[in-house]
Amino acid sequence: MTFIYFLELFGTFVFAISGILTATSKKFDLVGAIIIGIVTSMGGGTLRDLLIGSTPVGWMLDLNYIYVVGAALFICFFFSKYFKHLRKSFFLFDTIGIALFTVLGMQKTLDAGLSPTMAIMMGIVSAVFGGVIRDVLTNRIPLIFRKEIYAIACLAGALTYYLMMRFSQLDNINLAVSMLVVIIIRVISVKKSITLPFQPKI
Amino acid sequence: MTFIYFLELFGTFVFAISGILTATSKKFDLVGAIIIGIVTSMGGGTLRDLLIGSTPVGWMLDLNYIYVVGAALFICFFFSKYFKHLRKSFFLFDTIGIALFTVLGMQKTLDAGLSPTMAIMMGIVSAVFGGVIRDVLTNRIPLIFRKEIYAIACLAGALTYYLMMRFSQLDNINLAVSMLVVIIIRVISVKKSITLPFQPKI
Amino acid sequence: MTFIYFLELFGTFVFAISGILTATSKKFDLVGAIIIGIVTSMGGGTLRDLLIGSTPVGWMLDLNYIYVVGAALFICFFFSKYFKHLRKSFFLFDTIGIALFTVLGMQKTLDAGLSPTMAIMMGIVSAVFGGVIRDVLTNRIPLIFRKEIYAIACLAGALTYYLMMRFSQLDNINLAVSMLVVIIIRVISVKKSITLPFQPKI
Repeated sequence: MTFIYFLELFGTFVFAISGILTATSKKFDLVGAIIIGIVTSMGGGTLRDLLIGSTPVGWMLDLNYIYVVGAALFICFFFSKYFKHLRKSFFLFDTIGIALFTVLGMQKTLDAGLSPTMAIMMGIVSAVFGGVIRDVLTNRIPLIFRKEIYAIACLAGALTYYLMMRFSQLDNINLAVSMLVVIIIRVISVKKSITLPFQPKI
Repeated sequence: MTFIYFLELFGTFVFAISGILTATSKKFDLVGAIIIGIVTSMGGGTLRDLLIGSTPVGWMLDLNYIYVVGAALFICFFFSKYFKHLRKSFFLFDTIGIALFTVLGMQKTLDAGLSPTMAIMMGIVSAVFGGVIRDVLTNRIPLIFRKEIYAIACLAGALTYYLMMRFSQLDNINLAVSMLVVIIIRVISVKKSITLPFQPKI
Repeated sequence: MTFIYFLELFGTFVFAISGILTATSKKFDLVGAIIIGIVTSMGGGTLRDLLIGSTPVGWMLDLNYIYVVGAALFICFFFSKYFKHLRKSFFLFDTIGIALFTVLGMQKTLDAGLSPTMAIMMGIVSAVFGGVIRDVLTNRIPLIFRKEIYAIACLAGALTYYLMMRFSQLDNINLAVSMLVVIIIRVISVKKSITLPFQPKI
């Protein structure tokens, strides 16, 4: 098991926990918790795979993703009382997750022979659409449309990865630097409450 | 026309009626009724086909599914006043529908070369996601996330089918027994109002 | 660049503006505006491509669609104050857009080897589902389910195109006449406030 694969499963785990906690806060039952956990953690990659035509979608060929959601369910059921003390850790893990999903989604799109612009778009889709689908299924306006510069951080990381890829061959360093860009921008933006309002000049 | 194909069209018909009745209760127009009828009856199978990469999706190659939705529309328009006396019948037909969709969805996923775990998941998706998409389009939190052990009945039926398939070759008996498992569990759970709350120990 | 291709980009542009204006009216940020702009203008064609199995979906292979959404974003940000005087123009452009998307969606489905009935359905999906997804993402019941005979106009245009295609070879004339049918029906229905209620006889 490579380090990147481990990180990917870990990102899936953190996203699944975020989904399951949303489900419990809405008083969903076990089935709702499982579905929201799966959708949150795998929805972005699934949409990317459908759009680029890579089917069966990735997680259908590797049971580990399902086991990871099962583990998240177990953890949420028995240990969620400790989570309030862990909010900071979760925020960090979640940020690592989107950073990684961005770069891996980009790479998968490039591997499918699509243009860099599409790879950047699909990187962002991989990172943020799980949360969008979670919000749609729980009847909320997607958080990402109004708060935090979540997607902008992914965009900056994706652009970094693209530029480094063009000018060097140091794959792992590119990955690490691009992820760091996502993480730093998100952490700063949340600490400073930076948002990006889009209000036309009327 | 085989018996199973007839049952599948019948399941589609019942699901379409359930969708059209939801649309009329929300004062949708004719277009809304048609779209919700199609989505409710074919949404689950469509999502399954997209995920496993079986395109064009099944119903696009067989006009009978569309005719069945047309028949459901006709019936709902002229005869819905009799439906209140038929609630029990509808519940039974609907349950037969999900039982059948579960097993057929499983079989189609296995035929696509995917693992039994994925087949079980896709069986459940086939049976329940039409209703989930219907609820999302009508701006409700999907019923399945909070009430009834709908999906659990499908899971039990799918597991039964998988186990019987491993140990015997009696395809039709497997089908019948698995469907019976779904139907019995759902009927009992509704009669006894059994639910499966998922509330972490806080 | 052919005239039809130009019209298609123009339809995308008008749909993107409609999506971005919805996003700003909901106080979405820049990311929300971009996503809703893309989804509104390309969601219908994307769903059609997924269902008929034409992947990567069309806009992933042609960056012009993305540039057009970028232009729409620019226009909305700096010039939306002039839009109230332009409401009639927008309605006309939007109607031309759905007329064109209907016929192009139909043609693409026929090219994929599917039946005329499916082509007509996919023509309507191409024209109207961008708006449906926009409404779902902004947590509203899709407008098309309750108001205007938007989809019926598309259906009439699609039937016209199919009939003319069967009996003649004059492709551009077929296209023009079919689009005119969509435009005339929609304009008349909006002027006369014609709706199509679907209320079963209870």
